[in-house]
Amino acid sequence: MPAQITSFANPQIKNVIALVKKSKARSAQGLFVVEGMKMFREMPPSWLYQAYVSETFEKGRFWQETREICSPLVVSDQVFASMSDTCAPQGILALVRQPAYSLEQLAGTDSRPFLLLLENLQDPGNLGTILRTAEAAGCAGVIMSRDTVDIYNPKVIRSTMGAVYRVPFLYAEDFGQTVIRLKEKGFSIYAAHLQGSVPFSQADYTVSCACMIGNEGKGLTEAAASLADWRIRIPMEGQAESLNAAVSAALIMYEAYRQKKT
Amino acid sequence: MPAQITSFANPQIKNVIALVKKSKARSAQGLFVVEGMKMFREMPPSWLYQAYVSETFEKGRFWQETREICSPLVVSDQVFASMSDTCAPQGILALVRQPAYSLEQLAGTDSRPFLLLLENLQDPGNLGTILRTAEAAGCAGVIMSRDTVDIYNPKVIRSTMGAVYRVPFLYAEDFGQTVIRLKEKGFSIYAAHLQGSVPFSQADYTVSCACMIGNEGKGLTEAAASLADWRIRIPMEGQAESLNAAVSAALIMYEAYRQKKT
Repeated sequence: MPAQITSFANPQIKNVIALVKKSKARSAQGLFVVEGMKMFREMPPSWLYQAYVSETFEKGRFWQETREICSPLVVSDQVFASMSDTCAPQGILALVRQPAYSLEQLAGTDSRPFLLLLENLQDPGNLGTILRTAEAAGCAGVIMSRDTVDIYNPKVIRSTMGAVYRVPFLYAEDFGQTVIRLKEKGFSIYAAHLQGSVPFSQADYTVSCACMIGNEGKGLTEAAASLADWRIRIPMEGQAESLNAAVSAALIMYEAYRQKKT
Repeated sequence: MPAQITSFANPQIKNVIALVKKSKARSAQGLFVVEGMKMFREMPPSWLYQAYVSETFEKGRFWQETREICSPLVVSDQVFASMSDTCAPQGILALVRQPAYSLEQLAGTDSRPFLLLLENLQDPGNLGTILRTAEAAGCAGVIMSRDTVDIYNPKVIRSTMGAVYRVPFLYAEDFGQTVIRLKEKGFSIYAAHLQGSVPFSQADYTVSCACMIGNEGKGLTEAAASLADWRIRIPMEGQAESLNAAVSAALIMYEAYRQKKT
């Protein structure tokens, strides 16, 4: 049995905390942090960098399964709590290698792929929910502008419910240029827009296409929206001014899914 | 100009804090708390009980508009910050009377109403987003089981984006009995269910109908699901096990909306 880490000053522990809290640390090391048995089990094996469990976890029912997969380091419960991003830690946490997908991978995985293009989304729960829905709706991938919230933020990871392992994604250095490259590849580009002229269910998603969704408060920039072939609109009743970004994305992704299935 | 409240020990201030934090206090007084100019402006005038603004707000551009609507009490910025549920308070907060809707109002407002029935939803953001989407999709009302998160929780209120003022809702003392009353009124009852036999888009929403959505982790209880005429399922690709509750509700509400419009 490995020695238990009990010191908060242990450099590895301090590094895990930095990886939980700081986007820059994650980016510099190419790692991110997942918590809980579900996220541990669903992880592609080659992505695992290092697992940590609490002393209580080591005495529990998942210990045998876990030690057979990897060689987790055991830390005291107090130290584990200091590393965890949740109020009720499950006692297992892993450092995971960040995947690297190319635009060609996202654009070429399906015969007529549907891609989601996110500009400057800021709410971690929204981004996680969008990834989760993207998997369910068979979306081929998610492309994000550089100023979108960090997908490796623990709140995003948690709300993906594992989809972060399975939905290809990338941050576009230049969002506009990436949209133009997709157009050159023959993609139809749609923009979800409050002043859109086409109801979203009347756009054609049976071709290779991608839909842009904008920031929660401000929507799409005009620079981005102007690149679209069509501005599409989700009809709304009452005095509703807009929909939640994850809801808008879900409605559009499921409409694309429905059209491709039928 | 009214005297400024500067004491944290002021009984009114202490009561506002109780109303922000405690569901029981809100229920006992029949009040809830809203923050920010958007929520203040959209409030039906008769719902207003008492408004509070910060000393900085009193010097700002919305002061004239606000004092013409009501007689807000001015409190010091420090006291205001202690009452606010947000990190960046806008400096205006109001106590609002809770509305009281009857089942007859919810079931009888439209000619062929669509109602949402929520059993034990726990995430405030989900409930708020569902209200927001319900307004946009023309949903006639939302009925919640007693153990659903408090709709007057400030996080719920915030994420409704004002829909809490416009979408009728009620808590059912007995969820099952309420479903049975709807059946007696001729409603078709659907249950969103992972083992549903009918794809959600094949259910008929052009009649008076209601759809049950269950708890985020556990889904619907069998007791509730067994009351449904049909268990409906949202198709999913990949390894996705379920969808976010607000996303599921949105897909079903918008399908109902689409069918009623066409």
